[in-house]
Amino acid sequence: MAGEDKLRPLRERIDAIDAEILALIAERARIAQEVGRVKQEAGERDNFYRPEREAQILRRVRDANPGPLDDETVVRIFREIMSACLALEKPLQVAFLGPEGTFTQQAAYKHFGQSVQVHPFPAIDEIFRAVASGACHFGVVPVENSSEGVVTHTLDSFLGTSLLISGEVVLRIHHALLSRCRSLDEVQEVLAHSQALAQCREWLDRFLPNVKRTPVSSNAEAARLAAIVPGSAAIAGEVAARLYELNVLERNIEDDPDNTTRFLVVGRQAVGPTGDDKTSLLVSTGNRPGALYQILQPFAVHGISMTKIESRPSRRGMWDYVFFIDIEGHRDDPEVARALRDLEQKAQMVKWLGSYPKAVI
Amino acid sequence: MAGEDKLRPLRERIDAIDAEILALIAERARIAQEVGRVKQEAGERDNFYRPEREAQILRRVRDANPGPLDDETVVRIFREIMSACLALEKPLQVAFLGPEGTFTQQAAYKHFGQSVQVHPFPAIDEIFRAVASGACHFGVVPVENSSEGVVTHTLDSFLGTSLLISGEVVLRIHHALLSRCRSLDEVQEVLAHSQALAQCREWLDRFLPNVKRTPVSSNAEAARLAAIVPGSAAIAGEVAARLYELNVLERNIEDDPDNTTRFLVVGRQAVGPTGDDKTSLLVSTGNRPGALYQILQPFAVHGISMTKIESRPSRRGMWDYVFFIDIEGHRDDPEVARALRDLEQKAQMVKWLGSYPKAVI
Repeated sequence: MAGEDKLRPLRERIDAIDAEILALIAERARIAQEVGRVKQEAGERDNFYRPEREAQILRRVRDANPGPLDDETVVRIFREIMSACLALEKPLQVAFLGPEGTFTQQAAYKHFGQSVQVHPFPAIDEIFRAVASGACHFGVVPVENSSEGVVTHTLDSFLGTSLLISGEVVLRIHHALLSRCRSLDEVQEVLAHSQALAQCREWLDRFLPNVKRTPVSSNAEAARLAAIVPGSAAIAGEVAARLYELNVLERNIEDDPDNTTRFLVVGRQAVGPTGDDKTSLLVSTGNRPGALYQILQPFAVHGISMTKIESRPSRRGMWDYVFFIDIEGHRDDPEVARALRDLEQKAQMVKWLGSYPKAVI
Repeated sequence: MAGEDKLRPLRERIDAIDAEILALIAERARIAQEVGRVKQEAGERDNFYRPEREAQILRRVRDANPGPLDDETVVRIFREIMSACLALEKPLQVAFLGPEGTFTQQAAYKHFGQSVQVHPFPAIDEIFRAVASGACHFGVVPVENSSEGVVTHTLDSFLGTSLLISGEVVLRIHHALLSRCRSLDEVQEVLAHSQALAQCREWLDRFLPNVKRTPVSSNAEAARLAAIVPGSAAIAGEVAARLYELNVLERNIEDDPDNTTRFLVVGRQAVGPTGDDKTSLLVSTGNRPGALYQILQPFAVHGISMTKIESRPSRRGMWDYVFFIDIEGHRDDPEVARALRDLEQKAQMVKWLGSYPKAVI
């Protein structure tokens, strides 16, 4: 081993660094325990986890990251350190949309680190119930889901809950074309959730222009069917190819290479401002002409960016609409507060769903 | 918030510590890059990941851990730091027995950290092929598996491979009794992999003494059947309850509360000694009386502890047996080397499967 002489001093330096990191992590954990004691004495036992403080720490780490590790990696390492320190007080119980191995579980770990206890639930409603009842501290649910089609369930669950949004998680999602066929020529039908079909439309138009597209309940179901229906192909994550013994005919067929899925973290408490927040609202209007235009006006007037709007029929009566709106900023920010006051004058109902830190990475 | 005055100095101290940790992790990453350059100059490009060095670092961290975080947590954090530093050079490609969400994937992440690319394969043989061909750097396979019943496939795969064992991973496994039934009284049949039935025998004898026990191909299959066969219950991980909408009739029914599953990491290169190693051997004997006794003698004579022995019929002919043996120590340890020399005199064939660091946690 020619390089051993050169390697020894480098390894000794690494060992010394590791000893320092270990001592610092231990000290950090002891201080975190002290923070827990102070909060308990102040009667803030339920407040042991503060999403706004966590987001600020992670942003500081991200912004101060000198390299060579990328921001995502250093944020993940610090997430683990914080997750471990927090678990000393009480491990967070986190409900997620199961089964195990789903993107939602991945999102839960990305947001909370590995030192939490995650619990799979089969339906969005059950996650809301588990959090509302106090059985879990937080729940993680998909909200703009490119592949599982549960967006509307999540939004509908907000109609009848007192839970608040305390965070968001963004995951990058790739689609592949999977089939028992050996080549694209043999494919006569493409199966996928309608959202996945939409996300890959340009690719399908170009490479499979005359092939039937059939929406099914989920991409997992599409993959299952592709394994038994001759001549069919599924749009799904590459993982499904192994599961159902399908060939990967093409990778990354999504039209937008930055295709992401967004998840919301729901909890029982409001989160303080961090300087880089989002606010989610549920707004209902009557079926008057110009109703939507009217409710958007306060945001325009006060210079508030809207990042998302989604309309849903309300459950209360025909002709009543409900809008889910995401805006930039925190309810405690002066401009946002003014816009919300104006909005309350114009809408039938405004329900504040939470102000929370934007996803750090 | 009564405690804010007391919290502020604690939080400032945490922020200062985080800045120090970040700087140290960045420095560690730069030195790791330097290590990579030195190795490359010395023509050791394939040797960029050294399991023995990693095990030594993790043991040092574990042994120096001053608390309050437990050893498992600090080892996991350092695993992530090392995993991230290593990925700067080249992310490790790791094959595991799929599908996603299995214990084997959990084992792969536990051993290599999150900064690796994991690839699910549907069969043990394919994992061996993926590693032998160089498509993946390492493979993770269950070897003493309490729930999936693939032990023999793994051992058989070693008969015909030149791959070497480069590590082991130990996971704790819990079993639950799952059923569509509402109570134990209604259960008429218990389904599970035969190993799971064996691991829960005392509990079954006590609480379901007159109920039929039916071995099936896996605990996952048992859970699937329990959802459709009236009056049946499955022994499986609690996770399966959500997946198949079963009731959890009882938790932790395994007789040994330290029930663990062991996984092996296979690679293409030998691993150096760390001072706390295991060696795995494949030994064949003729069908002579006392053959087994003879091959065990060298270990007794040289004071080597045997941690495991498993007999398998060889594929070469009737009446030929093959023994898989794990001993404590590394092939380069003098006592082990002497025992192996003696063993070679007594056995028909001795195949060294690898010497590797014992699992750190």
